[in-house]
Amino acid sequence: MPQHPTRILGVDPGLRRTGWGVIEVLANRLSFIACGTVFSDDKEELAHRLLALHKGLTEVVTSYEPDEAAVEQTFVNKDATATLKLGQARGIAMLVPAQAGLFVAEYAPNLVKKTVVGSGHADKKQIRLMIKVLLPKADPKSDDAADALAIAITHAHHRTSHSWERGLPVRS
Amino acid sequence: MPQHPTRILGVDPGLRRTGWGVIEVLANRLSFIACGTVFSDDKEELAHRLLALHKGLTEVVTSYEPDEAAVEQTFVNKDATATLKLGQARGIAMLVPAQAGLFVAEYAPNLVKKTVVGSGHADKKQIRLMIKVLLPKADPKSDDAADALAIAITHAHHRTSHSWERGLPVRS
Repeated sequence: MPQHPTRILGVDPGLRRTGWGVIEVLANRLSFIACGTVFSDDKEELAHRLLALHKGLTEVVTSYEPDEAAVEQTFVNKDATATLKLGQARGIAMLVPAQAGLFVAEYAPNLVKKTVVGSGHADKKQIRLMIKVLLPKADPKSDDAADALAIAITHAHHRTSHSWERGLPVRS
Repeated sequence: MPQHPTRILGVDPGLRRTGWGVIEVLANRLSFIACGTVFSDDKEELAHRLLALHKGLTEVVTSYEPDEAAVEQTFVNKDATATLKLGQARGIAMLVPAQAGLFVAEYAPNLVKKTVVGSGHADKKQIRLMIKVLLPKADPKSDDAADALAIAITHAHHRTSHSWERGLPVRS
């Protein structure tokens, strides 16, 4: 029986900029499909900014039809206002793939860095360099899009155990 | 020309329980339409909990067809994890009325208490008592539903200035 690649959407949520990246995984082979950033205008009211993120991410899901999704587990910093803003954007980032019926995994930033770069303390430059190595055709125009690809790669590496834990069929 | 009442949806967002309340306002007269609580199961994954809140609130908007919406401006406490959870639920609470094309106002908890009870430091019991006075037909089964009605009442009292600021037609 021929194997089919699994398409993974990675999302790095933020109220102003939400990065997204789509990759395919077949056995241990990764390939780049697309990546980008959804913006919201900070002059708009909050409800309309969230609507813009929802529309943008829904377009990504409709266009690229991922099979699974992964969202970064937000770093909870000491600035409660920033955490609240991030939480609101993250709510939308989790909702959109769930509305499409996808399983939505969550990964801590340290695990993403460790999976992609090999160290939990990698900086954004190191992540972009490793994205170029792991996905030579990728051309992320922003750190957000690069981070989103890193999250998708992390899910590609950890999803088998997820599927096993959840009793889901392993598709690749 | 006969005046038409304006229907207002108030939402008190929370990840486990999101309260909602619908009232009508015509000139200075308020009337109760409906209220309730949307629950999400804390044994479910986050994405599915947010999906449950989105579905529940979308049903409310579809059933009661409000003209305007108001959401409580979340109290930012010192527990960052709780703030993040609340932020995620609040993102959904803001998104749903925006998807229906409604203007979504935000009110701080102190303004809600001051408007409904007359003091910014009122407790939940005082809010429920005043809801009974202001909306005799209301029967909130939970503090969340009572708070959501209080938010709707607050919007009824403050919306004219909003409409003026935004250049929107004042409908009541």
